[in-house]
Amino acid sequence: MTVTNVAAYAAPAAKAPLERTTVPRRPVGEHDVLIDIKFAGICHSDIHQAREGWGEAIFPMVPGHEIAGVVSEIGSGVTKFKVGDKVGVGCFVDSCRTCEYCERGEEQFCVEGNTPTYNGVGRDGEATYGGYSTHVVVDENYTLRIPEGLALDEAAPLLCAGITLYSPLNRWQAGPGKKVAILGMGGLGHMGVKIAGALGAEVTVLSQSLRKKDDGLKLGATHYYATSDEKTFEELAGTFDLIVCTVSAPLPLDKYLSLLKVDGAFVNVGAPEEPNSLNMFSLISGNKALAGSMIGGIRETQEMLDFCARHGLGAEIELISAEQINEAYDRVVNSDVRYRFVIDTATI
Amino acid sequence: MTVTNVAAYAAPAAKAPLERTTVPRRPVGEHDVLIDIKFAGICHSDIHQAREGWGEAIFPMVPGHEIAGVVSEIGSGVTKFKVGDKVGVGCFVDSCRTCEYCERGEEQFCVEGNTPTYNGVGRDGEATYGGYSTHVVVDENYTLRIPEGLALDEAAPLLCAGITLYSPLNRWQAGPGKKVAILGMGGLGHMGVKIAGALGAEVTVLSQSLRKKDDGLKLGATHYYATSDEKTFEELAGTFDLIVCTVSAPLPLDKYLSLLKVDGAFVNVGAPEEPNSLNMFSLISGNKALAGSMIGGIRETQEMLDFCARHGLGAEIELISAEQINEAYDRVVNSDVRYRFVIDTATI
Repeated sequence: MTVTNVAAYAAPAAKAPLERTTVPRRPVGEHDVLIDIKFAGICHSDIHQAREGWGEAIFPMVPGHEIAGVVSEIGSGVTKFKVGDKVGVGCFVDSCRTCEYCERGEEQFCVEGNTPTYNGVGRDGEATYGGYSTHVVVDENYTLRIPEGLALDEAAPLLCAGITLYSPLNRWQAGPGKKVAILGMGGLGHMGVKIAGALGAEVTVLSQSLRKKDDGLKLGATHYYATSDEKTFEELAGTFDLIVCTVSAPLPLDKYLSLLKVDGAFVNVGAPEEPNSLNMFSLISGNKALAGSMIGGIRETQEMLDFCARHGLGAEIELISAEQINEAYDRVVNSDVRYRFVIDTATI
Repeated sequence: MTVTNVAAYAAPAAKAPLERTTVPRRPVGEHDVLIDIKFAGICHSDIHQAREGWGEAIFPMVPGHEIAGVVSEIGSGVTKFKVGDKVGVGCFVDSCRTCEYCERGEEQFCVEGNTPTYNGVGRDGEATYGGYSTHVVVDENYTLRIPEGLALDEAAPLLCAGITLYSPLNRWQAGPGKKVAILGMGGLGHMGVKIAGALGAEVTVLSQSLRKKDDGLKLGATHYYATSDEKTFEELAGTFDLIVCTVSAPLPLDKYLSLLKVDGAFVNVGAPEEPNSLNMFSLISGNKALAGSMIGGIRETQEMLDFCARHGLGAEIELISAEQINEAYDRVVNSDVRYRFVIDTATI
């Protein structure tokens, strides 16, 4: 087989609107699967990269690392998937496979750097193109199985938003008897509410306003507070075992750390660009931890998908056509989406 | 029995030199032990408080929360100790005993506040006076047993410096196969080196200079690096599972976090007075944690003493007479002590 050009939506240059084009996909290798992409979620990081907010990027850029589709061809050595299987692809499509982190299934921290699903260069030297497209070729070892019981459109955002919340909730032991706060009620946060609830924790949403309160309670939260109200911080002082912060703006950390119990943890998954100020005594005075968490490895991502399928947890989505992508980008920047845009790739 | 006045060294007012005086000790109650104090360590926090560096304090002040001595009288209800037992007293002498934290043996975080060994007010409404004295009366439940095999003078500093390092090393799982750095080679740090080594970890000291390198290696470190040398940060990038920071000055946190492996933790026990700057991405990009730790509860302090006795770990001390206290204070402020001053209370 030879390289095939497939339909895609791409940003031709930084900050330029995305437009219809074609991009090359490599031949299906021995361990590759060809995926007919059905749906692709729009992650805020797609916008950061397409607009070069995170530094120099590779153009044309086909964003998209929340990919859900169906296997339509497999390489001769593929053992994990067969044609017709429902599959997903997340934030990376390859890694060195031999370093300490790859060996223990934390490929996101590969010491040689993983190969991003888009805006990267593969181990073959070719640019990678993401999920705003009709097809993609991916190594079976970096392909996830989407279990029965998850609709493909609602499953797509799990590949980034889902694992980004599942991993810290899992690692920091959200579960029965634990009081967990999800800070921020957006694409990431709403998945945190669902997953923390399904893990058995008592979930509180901390959002700027009470505007999305009904949604929060419906998705699994027991309590919902506005962080714009100073009384929230008095009332909730010393309350939480775990706070997972999905907010990317810099926050008054000491104030939020005061909401933790002794031994509690505040885990960031949203990365503000400016540095934060922190009084070390906010941590010492209660054996508290401030931590970070970045997506998850292949093993844990599969575990998350299986967990979400068992609990019937998909993302809350607004399904759009490809021609709505640019408008959707502006709405994401304005936090005007409940809670994830997903592109129907049949419209590309 | 009535209140007894006992000899002590006290600061009559903030920043005034300490001088010989007498202070009252309460009658030995049903659950109290009377301790003949033999040795009292000088902790940097004694100086902070005697000089009102941490805010308004109670004078006259008898500092000292690293107390080692021998039981000379017991109350009628005492079951844990008998006359002649070697005992110690640490940073607090009482707490509410009923809150969540007291119940699980983390009395240092008592929700009503614990009763500090000095510069506090007891549950009886009387001022507390610390270990720079000949005698003290303490509830048996807040008294520690100093096991055979620990010399009393070398054991005294364990009651604060020892537990301050043992608790985070224990909680954050220093042990075989783990690379642990101790940041700062002073009264706290040198106990960290000993304890981390005894726990089986591979220990590195990170100190401003190489001045104390011989000591560090003798006490159990395998490696010793100067943080004033920029090459240290290049060479040790991504090296440690755990860094315990005993430094009270504000540090370039992002630079130190780069020394951690994925999933590593940087735990502060030294509290800078000014806020630190932190780039959240330093935590996110390796699932890292920045944590704090404050002394330990009674249960864990006893565990630490038993551990130190089994491994023959006392503090490295300079034994002084009471009249040298003021000079010792100046030397502690100038980091001119290897590694803890201990007062021979027979000289009071």
